[in-house]
Amino acid sequence: GLPRLMLNAADWQAAAESVLPRSVYDYYAAGADDRTTLAANPAALAAHRLRPRVLVPVGGTSPATTLLGSSLAAPIVIAPTAMQRMAHPEGEAAVARAAAAAGLPMTLSTMATTSLEGVAAAVPGGGGVRWFQLYVFRGPARATTEALVRRAEAAGYTALVLTADAPVYGNREADVRNGFSLPPGLRLANFMGDAPPQDEEGGAEQGADEEGGAAAAGGGGAIADMDASVAGGSGLAAFGDAMLDADLSTDCIAWLRTLTSLPILVKGVLRADDAAAAMAAGAAGVVVSNHGARQLDGAVTSVMALRGVVEAVKRPPPGGPPPGVVLVDGGFRRGTDVLKALALGADAVLLGRPVLWALAVGGQAGVAALLGSLIDETRRAMMLAGVPSWDRIPPGLVVLPDGRIADDAPVDASGW
Amino acid sequence: GLPRLMLNAADWQAAAESVLPRSVYDYYAAGADDRTTLAANPAALAAHRLRPRVLVPVGGTSPATTLLGSSLAAPIVIAPTAMQRMAHPEGEAAVARAAAAAGLPMTLSTMATTSLEGVAAAVPGGGGVRWFQLYVFRGPARATTEALVRRAEAAGYTALVLTADAPVYGNREADVRNGFSLPPGLRLANFMGDAPPQDEEGGAEQGADEEGGAAAAGGGGAIADMDASVAGGSGLAAFGDAMLDADLSTDCIAWLRTLTSLPILVKGVLRADDAAAAMAAGAAGVVVSNHGARQLDGAVTSVMALRGVVEAVKRPPPGGPPPGVVLVDGGFRRGTDVLKALALGADAVLLGRPVLWALAVGGQAGVAALLGSLIDETRRAMMLAGVPSWDRIPPGLVVLPDGRIADDAPVDASGW
Amino acid sequence: GLPRLMLNAADWQAAAESVLPRSVYDYYAAGADDRTTLAANPAALAAHRLRPRVLVPVGGTSPATTLLGSSLAAPIVIAPTAMQRMAHPEGEAAVARAAAAAGLPMTLSTMATTSLEGVAAAVPGGGGVRWFQLYVFRGPARATTEALVRRAEAAGYTALVLTADAPVYGNREADVRNGFSLPPGLRLANFMGDAPPQDEEGGAEQGADEEGGAAAAGGGGAIADMDASVAGGSGLAAFGDAMLDADLSTDCIAWLRTLTSLPILVKGVLRADDAAAAMAAGAAGVVVSNHGARQLDGAVTSVMALRGVVEAVKRPPPGGPPPGVVLVDGGFRRGTDVLKALALGADAVLLGRPVLWALAVGGQAGVAALLGSLIDETRRAMMLAGVPSWDRIPPGLVVLPDGRIADDAPVDASGW
Amino acid sequence: GLPRLMLNAADWQAAAESVLPRSVYDYYAAGADDRTTLAANPAALAAHRLRPRVLVPVGGTSPATTLLGSSLAAPIVIAPTAMQRMAHPEGEAAVARAAAAAGLPMTLSTMATTSLEGVAAAVPGGGGVRWFQLYVFRGPARATTEALVRRAEAAGYTALVLTADAPVYGNREADVRNGFSLPPGLRLANFMGDAPPQDEEGGAEQGADEEGGAAAAGGGGAIADMDASVAGGSGLAAFGDAMLDADLSTDCIAWLRTLTSLPILVKGVLRADDAAAAMAAGAAGVVVSNHGARQLDGAVTSVMALRGVVEAVKRPPPGGPPPGVVLVDGGFRRGTDVLKALALGADAVLLGRPVLWALAVGGQAGVAALLGSLIDETRRAMMLAGVPSWDRIPPGLVVLPDGRIADDAPVDASGW
Ligand SMILES: Cc1cc2nc3c(=O)[nH]c(=O)nc-3n(C[C@H](O)[C@H](O)[C@H](O)COP(=O)(O)O)c2cc1C
Ligand SMILES: Cc1cc2nc3c(=O)[nH]c(=O)nc-3n(C[C@H](O)[C@H](O)[C@H](O)COP(=O)(O)O)c2cc1C
Ligand SMILES: Cc1cc2nc3c(=O)[nH]c(=O)nc-3n(C[C@H](O)[C@H](O)[C@H](O)COP(=O)(O)O)c2cc1C
Ligand SMILES: Cc1cc2nc3c(=O)[nH]c(=O)nc-3n(C[C@H](O)[C@H](O)[C@H](O)COP(=O)(O)O)c2cc1C
Repeated sequence: GLPRLMLNAADWQAAAESVLPRSVYDYYAAGADDRTTLAANPAALAAHRLRPRVLVPVGGTSPATTLLGSSLAAPIVIAPTAMQRMAHPEGEAAVARAAAAAGLPMTLSTMATTSLEGVAAAVPGGGGVRWFQLYVFRGPARATTEALVRRAEAAGYTALVLTADAPVYGNREADVRNGFSLPPGLRLANFMGDAPPQDEEGGAEQGADEEGGAAAAGGGGAIADMDASVAGGSGLAAFGDAMLDADLSTDCIAWLRTLTSLPILVKGVLRADDAAAAMAAGAAGVVVSNHGARQLDGAVTSVMALRGVVEAVKRPPPGGPPPGVVLVDGGFRRGTDVLKALALGADAVLLGRPVLWALAVGGQAGVAALLGSLIDETRRAMMLAGVPSWDRIPPGLVVLPDGRIADDAPVDASGW
Repeated sequence: GLPRLMLNAADWQAAAESVLPRSVYDYYAAGADDRTTLAANPAALAAHRLRPRVLVPVGGTSPATTLLGSSLAAPIVIAPTAMQRMAHPEGEAAVARAAAAAGLPMTLSTMATTSLEGVAAAVPGGGGVRWFQLYVFRGPARATTEALVRRAEAAGYTALVLTADAPVYGNREADVRNGFSLPPGLRLANFMGDAPPQDEEGGAEQGADEEGGAAAAGGGGAIADMDASVAGGSGLAAFGDAMLDADLSTDCIAWLRTLTSLPILVKGVLRADDAAAAMAAGAAGVVVSNHGARQLDGAVTSVMALRGVVEAVKRPPPGGPPPGVVLVDGGFRRGTDVLKALALGADAVLLGRPVLWALAVGGQAGVAALLGSLIDETRRAMMLAGVPSWDRIPPGLVVLPDGRIADDAPVDASGW
Repeated sequence: GLPRLMLNAADWQAAAESVLPRSVYDYYAAGADDRTTLAANPAALAAHRLRPRVLVPVGGTSPATTLLGSSLAAPIVIAPTAMQRMAHPEGEAAVARAAAAAGLPMTLSTMATTSLEGVAAAVPGGGGVRWFQLYVFRGPARATTEALVRRAEAAGYTALVLTADAPVYGNREADVRNGFSLPPGLRLANFMGDAPPQDEEGGAEQGADEEGGAAAAGGGGAIADMDASVAGGSGLAAFGDAMLDADLSTDCIAWLRTLTSLPILVKGVLRADDAAAAMAAGAAGVVVSNHGARQLDGAVTSVMALRGVVEAVKRPPPGGPPPGVVLVDGGFRRGTDVLKALALGADAVLLGRPVLWALAVGGQAGVAALLGSLIDETRRAMMLAGVPSWDRIPPGLVVLPDGRIADDAPVDASGW
Repeated sequence: GLPRLMLNAADWQAAAESVLPRSVYDYYAAGADDRTTLAANPAALAAHRLRPRVLVPVGGTSPATTLLGSSLAAPIVIAPTAMQRMAHPEGEAAVARAAAAAGLPMTLSTMATTSLEGVAAAVPGGGGVRWFQLYVFRGPARATTEALVRRAEAAGYTALVLTADAPVYGNREADVRNGFSLPPGLRLANFMGDAPPQDEEGGAEQGADEEGGAAAAGGGGAIADMDASVAGGSGLAAFGDAMLDADLSTDCIAWLRTLTSLPILVKGVLRADDAAAAMAAGAAGVVVSNHGARQLDGAVTSVMALRGVVEAVKRPPPGGPPPGVVLVDGGFRRGTDVLKALALGADAVLLGRPVLWALAVGGQAGVAALLGSLIDETRRAMMLAGVPSWDRIPPGLVVLPDGRIADDAPVDASGW
C-alpha cells in the first residue's frame, strides 16, 4: 500500500530521500555548482504573487486544456528525466501508465532505462500521450539519433522535445563525489535496439544485459553501458562530454524536420532571441527551462524568462513563423505555480523531480497520487483565483517580484 | 486569574499553543499550502514604515471612531472566526461580552459554535455592536442562508459580512494531517434553530446535542454536525466543498438586499475591480482580506491591496455608487498596524487569530485584556506619530515597502 | 584594569551584558514593541555603501570639526541617556570626564542620576563641552523645566537639546516584564536641587537620599524618586506618562528662547516638514533620531530620514531662518558610519548605547577607550575613502540602499 | 599525494582551515571591521544572473585570451597576496610554478616571503608570466620602492601593479585579537636584497635570517622583520601604518614611468573618476578591487563598480589616453564568475584567497589543481552560455541584481 498523507511534492521528496540510495537521490536532486539557480527556481515562483478575483462563478471550473492537438486533464506534462528505473523497478513504464491514467502527457528521456518501444507498450490499450526527448549525438553516433527519431515516430510518440541546453553536462558536484554511474543491472535502454518492455522485476534487466552488446544502431551497445573510463568522477558527465554534439545549432531543427513530421519543441530556452530563432527554424514551440538548474548555475529562473519568450513565440513578427506553444519548467510544485505559469502566457508546465520522488516511494500508484493531487490543487487554485477556465484568466492576476502587475509591465524593461 | 504579563498577541499565541489540543491549535493557526501568504501578511505590514510628526499637541489623543453609524472605542473589529467554543467553553459568548465591554464590534461567523441568538443574548443588557458573517450555501441549503439573514437582522445584528473568497475551502494541510473535525460535544450552532444562549459550561453543549437533529431551517441539523463522510482528511474542507456555493457572484448582493436592509460588507476583496463591482452591486463596503492566508496561498497581502481598493470604494466614478467603507485584515497585531491601515485609507481593521489565542488562555477576561492593550497601543502609536485623531493624520505618514511615500505614489503603478 | 581587546561596540556590549543586572541591561538595550526599528537602524546604515576615492593624499587626515562654536576631535557627540549610574557608580561624571578628555561634547539627560551641576563639577578644570537634554514636564512641573534650563545655562552647558519624540513613553516590553524602576540608592538627581558632584562610591547616593525631600523647584523631590504607583509594570513608563507634556508644540521653542540664549537643538525629528517648522520657530538645528528605536516602533531609520532633513535645515527657503546644524543618531557604531552620516550632510552623529556598555564594563577608562577607538576608526575610514578633511568629501561617496548614488538622487523621490 | 575531490574553492578553504594555524588562517581570511563587504563580494556576484544562449556551436570553445601582450590559458590572474610561505614552505615559488604550468600570470606581492628574484628563478626554464605588485613606502623608504621597481624589471616581471587602496591598513580585528605577525623563520624577502630562491624546506629561512641585516636598499633589513613594537595588536597593521605612503597621488604613476617602461596597473579602483585619473596619469589599466574586503568595510563590491570603470577606461574621452585594460577581483570563485566579469567588460579576473587555500593544502600541486579546475569551469560555463570565445559574448548575457539587463542599462543611473 501507499504511505498515507503524501500531500505535496515536499512530502514525496522527504520520503524518497529515505528510501533511495544516496547516490541515486543525489543524482536526482542535483543542481550545478553552488545550486544558486536550484534555490532560485522555487523562490522566483513564490515571489510572483496572485491577485485573485472573487464573486466569479467557479462551480464548473476545469483545469483541462488542449495541447498540440491532444486533450489534457490539466496543463501539466511529465518532464523527461533520465534513468527512472533507478527509482523503482518499473521505472519509465510506471510513469507512463500513471500519466496516461491521469490524462497527462509523458515525455520520455533519450537516457531512459526502458526503451521507447517498451514504454509505449507498457500502457494498457496503448492509451496516453507520449513525447520523446532527444539528445543529439555527435560524429558517427548521429546515426543513433536519427534512428531514435524514426523509432519514436513509429512507436506513436506525438512530439519531439529537442534538448538545447546540454552541449556539455553541467557541473554537478554531488555526482562527482559519489562517483555516480548507472547501477548494475540497468542500461540506457534506448541504445539496445528494440528492447522489450520491462514487465517483471529483475528479469528484464538481465535480458537487457544479455542482448546489450548486440542490436542498437550506431554503436548503441557501448552507449547503453554508459561506459566511461574516468574513475572517481561522474560517469554521466564523462559520458555526456564524450557523446553530446556540442556544435548543435538551429540547423538541427531543419535536419530533424527532414526525418519526421512530428512537432519539435526546443527545450532549454531562456531568451526571446533564441526562441525566435528556434521558431524561425521550424520549431513548433519551446520549453522555457534551465534544465532544473542542472546545467548553468547562475542561469535566470525560467519563470522570469517566461514572459519574454511568450512574446516572441506567441506574437511573431509579420511574415514570421506561425505562433507556437510555450511550456515551462523548473521548480513548479503547486497548483498555484501552474496557475501563475498560465497567467504569464505558458500553455503548460513540465514536472520533473516530483515524479521521481513519487515513483521511488510508491511506483505507479505514487505517481498517480502525485498527479491527482496536483490536478486537484490546480483546480482549487483556479476557483480561489476566479478562473473558471484557461480562456478566462482575469487581467492583472499576477504581480511580478518587483511589484509590477505583469499584464501592465513591458516585457523587456527591468524587473528580472 | 489571568496569566500575568500577556503583553502582546505573540504572548497570547505562545500561551494558547500550550493549552490547546494540537488539532485545534493547528486549525486556528493554519494557512493554505506552503503558508507563503501567512508569512507575507505580517512581513508586509512591517515593511511599511512610519514617518512620525513631532511637536504636535497630542495630549487629548483618542482612537475612537464611528463606523456604519456606531461609535467604536478604536477602529478595531473582531473578525469572524469559526468554532470559538473549541478554544473555550464560553466561546463566542465570551468574545461578544469582551468586545461589547471594550466598545468594539464583534463579527459572528456563520460557522459559530454558539447560535447567533445565543451570542446576542449573552451580552448583558444587550449592549455592544454585532455583525453577522455570511457563508452562502448552494442548492436547497440556500434556504438556510436566507433564514440566517432574517434571524441575524431580528437578533439585532447591524451589518452583514458576505464572505466572497471561499467558493471552496483552501488547502490547509495541517487539518488534513490531523483529520480535523468538530470536537465531540460541539456543533455548528447556527444550524440548530434558535438555540438558547450558552450560559453554563458543559450544560449547553449537551443541550445542543440533544436538540440538534430538530429545528434548523433547510436541513440545518445535518449541517450542524459538519457531517462529512471523508475519512482521514479535513472534515471542514469536505464540509465546505459540499455546502458552499461556488457559483456566487455579485448577483448575490442584490439578492441579499431583497431580504434585508442591513448594510452588506463584502469580505475577501483584494482588487480594485472587484471592489468596484461589489459597490456597484449595492455593497456598503468591503473587507480587504486574504482570509488570514487560509484560502489562496500566494495571494497578495491585504495591506498591499489596500490602497487600490480604497481608491475604488472611496472615490467612485461620477454617477457611480456612493463612497463606502473599507476594512482590512490579515496579520494586524499592533497599534502601529492599526495606524498604518488608517493612514492608508482604511476605516478599521479586523482582528482574527489573536482573539482566539486570548480566548483560549483567558476566556472573556483574556479577550478583554487583549482588546484593552491593543486600544492602548493604538492610542500610544497615534501620540508618537503626531496623530491626535483619525481626521488629523499628517500627509506622508507611511512609507511603502518600495521606499515611496504612500501619499505621493500613484496607486496603480509598481510597488506591490 | 580594563579588559583587553575591546575592539568595537559589539565587544563592549557583550561584556556589559555579562556584568549588568538583567533589568538594567534590558532597559538600556530596549526597543519599542517588536524592535523592528531597532534592527532597522544598523541594517539601514550597512545598506548604505561607500565609493572610496584613491590616490588622494591623506597623510594629514583629521576628523576634527567645529560645532556650535566648539572644536571637536571628531564629529561625535555623546547622546543623552538616562540613569547612567545604574551602569557604574561614577555614572554621568565618568562619561563627562572621558568625553572632555577625548575632545567630544557630552549631552546630559534630564533623567540623569547625577545632577547637572555635579556633572559640570566632575570634569577637572571645568574643561569639556556639555549640552543639556530637556524633557518638558506638564502642569505645575513646568516650573521644574524652567529651573532646569536656568541651572544648565548657569552651570556652563552650551546647548539645549529639546526632546520632541517623547510626548509619551514608547512601549518597551522588557521593562514591563522586568518591572523596571530605579534601583535602590539611585535618584533622578536633577530634581533634588543642587546636589553635589558624586565623588565617592556609596556615600553620594546616601547623601542624595537624605536631601532628596528638600530642595528642587517644582516638586522635584517626588520626581526624583520616579515614584510611580503602578505595580508590575515599567516604573519609567508610568513616570513618563504622568509627567511628560504631551501637548508640546513648536511654541515651546519660542518659550525656551525667552528663558535662555543657548542654542536649541530639537531632537527626534524624522521629517523635513518638522525640521522646517522647528527652524522657523527658532531652533538652532535638529537631531534626526528615532530615539534609538525606543519610542515608535516602525519609525523610519534616522539615516533614511537624514537627507530630507538636511535639505530643509541647510537650504531654507528665501526669507526663512538661517541654515542650522543637523545631527543624527541611532545605531551608529563604526567610523564608517560617521563617514556616511557626514557624506549625507550631517554635522555630527550622536552615540547612545555604546557609551553605556563601555561605562558598565570599564567606567571612565572604558568610555575613554571606546571614544578613542571610534575616533581612530573615523580617521582610518576617512583615509581609506579619500577624505582628508570634512570639507573635502568627494562627490558620490555614498550609495543609497536602492542603488542610487546619494548625491545624484533627488531627496523626495522614492528610495527610503 | 593530494587530497581527492577538492572540487571547488570552498573545498580548499575548508581543508585549509583545518591545516593552518589559526592566526595564519584568520589573517588570510580576514576582512575589515564587520566584514560586510567580505560578505557582499560573493553575494553581489551571485546576484548577477546569466541569460545563456543555446543552439550556438560551442564544440571548439576556448577560454584563452591575450593580456598585455601575453597569451593566457584563461582570463585569470593570480592576485598578489602577502606572505605565502606561511601557507606552505615553498610559498610564492610553488604558486609561480603552478601558474606558469597552467598558463596564467602570477602577481607577486611586495610583501612576499620569497624575493622577487627567487620567484623568477623558481620557475623551470624561466617560463610563465609574472607581474610585480608595488606598495609605495614613505620618506627614506621611498628608495626601497625605487629599487624594487628596477629589480622587478630586471628579473623579467612584465607589469607593475600599483596598489592604491592602502594608504593605511584596514581594520582587521581578527589579526589584532591574534596578535598576528610574521611567524618565526619567515621574513619579507624582498627587503633582504637579492635573496636566493628557496629550494629546500628549513634551510632557506635560516639563510634569510642570517643575511637579513645586510643588503637591501633603504633600510630593507628592518622592514624585512616587520618589526613593529606594538604589543598585543596586529604587527602588520602597525608595520603598514609606519611604512606606507599615505600621501600617494596620481603623481606616483608619472614618477614610476620615469623609472620603468613596464605597464602600470592601478589596483584598488572602485570609481570611474579615479579610473579616468589613473589613465590620464599614464596607467595602462586598472584593477577594480576592494582589496578582498580587507581595507574599507562598506566599500561597494567590485562587480558593482565594474561597469562604470570599464566605461571610463575603455571609452576614454576624445583627446584622452588610449583605452586600457580592466581587471577585477574580490570573491571570484567559479567559472561562471569569470564569465560574468568578462561579459561586463573586464579583461580578466584576479584570484586571491583560493590560491592560498590550495597552496596550504597541496602546495604547488594544490594550486595546479585549483587553477586547472577553474579553467575547466570557465570553459564549461562558456559552452553552457553559448560563448565560444571571448569575442563572441552574446548581448544581454548578464542580468544586474536590480533586474535590468546589463547591456541595456545606463552605467550611471541607479542599480548599484
Ligand atoms: C534526474 C533528472 C534527469 C533529467 N534528465 C533529463 C534528460 O534526460 N533530458 C532533458 O532534456 N532534461 C532532463 N532533465 C531536466 C528535466 O526535463 C526538467 O527540465 C527539470 O527537471 C524541471 O525542473 P524540476 O525538476 O524542478 O521540475 C532531468 C532532470 C532531472 C532532475
Ligand atoms: C480559525 C479561523 C476561522 C475563520 N473563520 C472564518 C469564517 O468563518 N468566516 C470568514 O469570513 N472568515 C473566517 N476567518 C478569516 C478571518 O475572518 C480573518 O479574515 C482573518 O483571520 C484575519 O487575519 P488574522 O487572523 O491574521 O487577524 C477565519 C480565520 C481563522 C483564523
Ligand atoms: C538607555 C537609554 C536612555 C535614553 N535616555 C534618553 C533621554 O533621557 N533623553 C533623550 O532625549 N534620549 C534618550 N535616549 C535616546 C538617545 O539619546 C539616542 O537618541 C539613542 O540612544 C541613539 O541611538 P543608539 O543608542 O543606537 O546610539 C536614550 C537612549 C537609551 C539607549
Ligand atoms: C592574505 C591576503 C594578502 C593580500 N596581500 C595583498 C598585497 O600584498 N598587495 C595587494 O595589493 N593586495 C593584497 N591582497 C588583496 C588581493 O590582491 C586581492 O585584491 C583580493 O584578495 C581579491 O579578493 P579574493 O581574495 O576574494 O579573491 C591580499 C589579499 C589577501 C587575502
